[in-house]
Order: sequence, then C-alpha cells, then structure tokens
Amino acid sequence: MRHKPYQCELERYPFTIQTDVRYGDCDVMGHVNNVAYARLFEETRVQFGMALHESNSLNHFGRRDRLMIVACHIFYLREVNYPAKVTLGAGVIRVGNSSYSLSVAMFNDEGVCVAVNTATLANGENGKSAPISSELRERLEVYRMNLEGIETP
Amino acid sequence: MRHKPYQCELERYPFTIQTDVRYGDCDVMGHVNNVAYARLFEETRVQFGMALHESNSLNHFGRRDRLMIVACHIFYLREVNYPAKVTLGAGVIRVGNSSYSLSVAMFNDEGVCVAVNTATLANGENGKSAPISSELRERLEVYRMNLEGIETP
Amino acid sequence: MRHKPYQCELERYPFTIQTDVRYGDCDVMGHVNNVAYARLFEETRVQFGMALHESNSLNHFGRRDRLMIVACHIFYLREVNYPAKVTLGAGVIRVGNSSYSLSVAMFNDEGVCVAVNTATLANGENGKSAPISSELRERLEVYRMNLEGIETP
Amino acid sequence: MRHKPYQCELERYPFTIQTDVRYGDCDVMGHVNNVAYARLFEETRVQFGMALHESNSLNHFGRRDRLMIVACHIFYLREVNYPAKVTLGAGVIRVGNSSYSLSVAMFNDEGVCVAVNTATLANGENGKSAPISSELRERLEVYRMNLEGIETP
Repeated sequence: MRHKPYQCELERYPFTIQTDVRYGDCDVMGHVNNVAYARLFEETRVQFGMALHESNSLNHFGRRDRLMIVACHIFYLREVNYPAKVTLGAGVIRVGNSSYSLSVAMFNDEGVCVAVNTATLANGENGKSAPISSELRERLEVYRMNLEGIETP
Repeated sequence: MRHKPYQCELERYPFTIQTDVRYGDCDVMGHVNNVAYARLFEETRVQFGMALHESNSLNHFGRRDRLMIVACHIFYLREVNYPAKVTLGAGVIRVGNSSYSLSVAMFNDEGVCVAVNTATLANGENGKSAPISSELRERLEVYRMNLEGIETP
Repeated sequence: MRHKPYQCELERYPFTIQTDVRYGDCDVMGHVNNVAYARLFEETRVQFGMALHESNSLNHFGRRDRLMIVACHIFYLREVNYPAKVTLGAGVIRVGNSSYSLSVAMFNDEGVCVAVNTATLANGENGKSAPISSELRERLEVYRMNLEGIETP
Repeated sequence: MRHKPYQCELERYPFTIQTDVRYGDCDVMGHVNNVAYARLFEETRVQFGMALHESNSLNHFGRRDRLMIVACHIFYLREVNYPAKVTLGAGVIRVGNSSYSLSVAMFNDEGVCVAVNTATLANGENGKSAPISSELRERLEVYRMNLEGIETP
C-alpha cells in the first residue's frame, strides 16, 4: 500500500522539526543511508512525543501512554546528499482504540519530499497494547494532520 | 496492510544469516531499538544481495541490477534484549517489471519471530527504476520464498 | 596523557559548529552514548575538512590531502542528556611532516565542556601517509587554535 | 602517546570475542568507518564487563562497580572492508585507586591487528569516580593482560 500524496505536503503537518544530516548517516553509495532515514523519522516521532506530552525530556517515557512502535512503513522517494539540512513534519492520521497512526515526512532544503513514513504506535510493552486514554486521545486531536480538501475514503 | 503469517515461519526462507545484537543497538528503553531492527534487516538484504550476485564483496554495487530500496515495511512483534543471537531469513515474494519484493524476518534464539520486514527493491537511482534483466529475474527465482501450502490471493 | 586545560575553552577554537543530539545517540544508561560523542567529533572533523578545503560537499575526498584518521583520543568529562543542543569547536594544534593534530571539544548549552577529542590526521590510505603539501600546510595555519597566554612546552 | 607493540598481540589477551562487521558500519570511503571501530571496541568492553561481573545480561549496570568511560584512545592501523569477521581481545593493563585501564585490540580474519584501543574506566557517574572495591580489584586481576617477556617501564 503506497503512501497518500497528501503525506508529501509539508504545509499539512501540524508539527515540524529541522535538523542536520550527519556524515555518519551516509553509506558506501555516498548518500544518506536508508536506515539513517529511519533514524531521522524516529527522532521526529520522539520530539513529537515530547510535544504531545508537553515534556522537555524523556521523563514521560516511564509513564502510561508511552510510545511502542508496532509498524513502520517508509517510502523512499529521493536521495539526500551530505551535507544537508532537512525538515520533517509529523501529523496524526488515525486514532484507534489502542493505537494511532502518525504520518511523518522528510523534505530537503528545496522543500521537496524525499521520504514518507507511516508509523503505527500503541501504548504498552512487548506487543501487548492497552486502550488509549481519553486524555491522550484529546491531545492527539491537537496534532491531527490537516486534510482540508482531501476526500477521505 | 499487515504482514502475512507465513512471513513468520523461518523454514520458508531460502536464505538465512545469524548475527549478534550489539550493546549499541539498544536504546534508553533498555532493549534493541526499532531502528536497529532496520539495520539488521538491511544487513540481511545486503548479504542476500551478495548471494544473489554470487559476490563476496560490495563490488557488484557499481554494476547494473544494484539494490535501490523503494519501500520498507517493518512490523514489530517482540522486544529483543541484549545480549542475543538472532537469525534472519530472506526470500523473494514478488518479481515485477522493474522491482521485486523481499520478505525478511528476524527470530530470537528461541526461534520466535520478533519482526517482519517487507522491502520493495528496484534497479536504478534516485527513484528512477529500470526493467529487471532476465538474468536477474532468473537469479531471483532461485531465492523464492517457499509458499507450499499457502493459498495465494 | 590527559588533554590540556585550554582544549576546554571554546573561545580558543577558530572553527565551530552547532548541532543537535539525537534520541538515537542515547544508550541504556539514558544519556548520550560514548560512541555517539565520537560520532559528533567525526561530524565536526568532516565539516572542518570542508572548511579547510573550501568545499561544500564531500567531493574533496577523492583528491590529495584527504583525511585519514590515525589516532583519536577522547576524554569524557560530563554526561549529556537528550534533548540537547551542543556546540563543537575545532582547531589545529600541531602540523608535522605527514600528519597534523586537531583538537575538538564539545560544549553543552550552558557552555560547559563535556568532552575533548585530540585527533591525528594524515594524508594517504591504509596507514601509509604522504607528506603534507605546502598548500595544505598554509590552509592549516588559518585554523590554528588560539594559544594566546599559554606557555607551550 | 602511541600504543605499545604488545597491545597488537592477540595471544596476550585473556578475553576475546568474535563478531561480524556490518554493512552499516561502512562509510562513503567504502570501508569500515572509524566510529564503527569505536562501536566494536565498546561492544568488547561491554561483553568484558559481563564476564568480569559473571553476568549474562546488563543487570549489573545498576549496581556498584559499573563502567564509566573516562578516556578512550584509539590507534587506527589498517582499513577493514565489508564483509569481515573480526576478533577482538581485551585485557586489564592497569588497576588504580578509582579507575583501571583496559587494552582492546581488533584483528582481521588474517590475524592482523587493525586497531588498538586503550580505555580508562572508573566507577561512578558524570565524572565523579569512587574507589575500586577490593572485590572488583580481585576480579580485574583475573583478566590481566599477559605481559610475559615485556619489560615494564
């Protein structure tokens, strides 16, 4: 299942970060490695998680409602060369009973989408998920992706 | 779209490797990080690529038919604690005109599947794919996943 | 052999970068891993190398005068917790016949030095070094560390 | 200060591990990255720490006598190409009041030493070290490097 075109549109993301690609992110092909993309998506999800929990540290990790990644789909669209500044956007695209889905996309310094990540996150540990609290549900709505003008299926 | 149950069955994989999880693969949660799973799946795909091209180095990278990752879906099923030996299996599950799909799965030392990765790979660069050569097509068939007893959709 | 106290003084460094620590840099102890420090020092050396060669890419890597790391000494002074912005400074402290030494130091967002790295770099490959060209020698002098007020041994 | 020649002699090391270099350890130069060497040295130190504490997990991390790295010197002698199996040896070369020094060396599959690491480790946190217990001191003696035939300075 491909990503949706709107996942490539930066202005639809309610949460964004900017960061630098590192030399150490590159592989023998000379450009940023595919696993390094995954690392940058993780970084975005962690910073999103801090925003979601209004935390400025990882202290919320020990509490309920912590992030457990269940599925992670990445679509690679373009190569990124070092050095580069990249922008990443994150937005909630689904809230279920015990899990939610986050769209994250990475953009190069020309604003072109280079990769899209859809991640399914759940509360809990080791594959056992717990219902999403109403408190978390409310907070997640704050970070809904802007789907204005999109016909949802 | 979830992975298929047969992707969790080690004996169906025509290609396997064994490797060690590293301390550096662990994160603040105390177990192997989700991006480290992606690193181990990459390692398996690269070793699979060497077997596919009957190469014992990365020299085939410069030639045609090199691996470009287009999509990478990972389903996280269980945590892995350090230290651990893991087994990873790889098998071809689809061969298209310009891309093919590889199933890779990781198993802990009790043989339990801890994660499944479906990767779409294509020839080419920067998102531009080229038709799969008949030579590569033939080699890919050698590493078909064993779907005996599975009703294909 | 310990680092010199002046290596901990940010204002002595002619070249500086600022960057972000990543969640993925942390280990099971909950703070930035010691190897991640090495990664950030490498990042600084690579960016220093680009400045040294007035390059904005890695294209100078193929030419003469490329960086080969011969020795890397790191002194760990303080822990860094995620998230954090860090500043790294680099300055030349020795220019020899075929190698030079670079001091790199990392500072937390309060300006406190958290680690010092002395690296010996040489031209060449696989342990075989070549004399430093007069051109490189001249460029290296531009990035001499400011040792004003320091009694050199 | 250079490493000592005996640090390059595998048979002097009381503790050894074997492991695989990963594709992800390589950088744009096409061989194993210098920071990846540091990662492999860390892996060896962590496994050494488990042997030292007769532990088969990281549970001893929370207890006294845990490893805090104070200094890490790496001497790079040769390149390593992927794929490769490497052997790493570790041995205690100094036991002080509150810290000890560990020599670690990496050998390629021809038994040639490719890098040497001298690490200073201490009990404690954030730069504050505590005296080494007599219990730890005893255990450290078990893993003394074999310096037979070496004139100590």
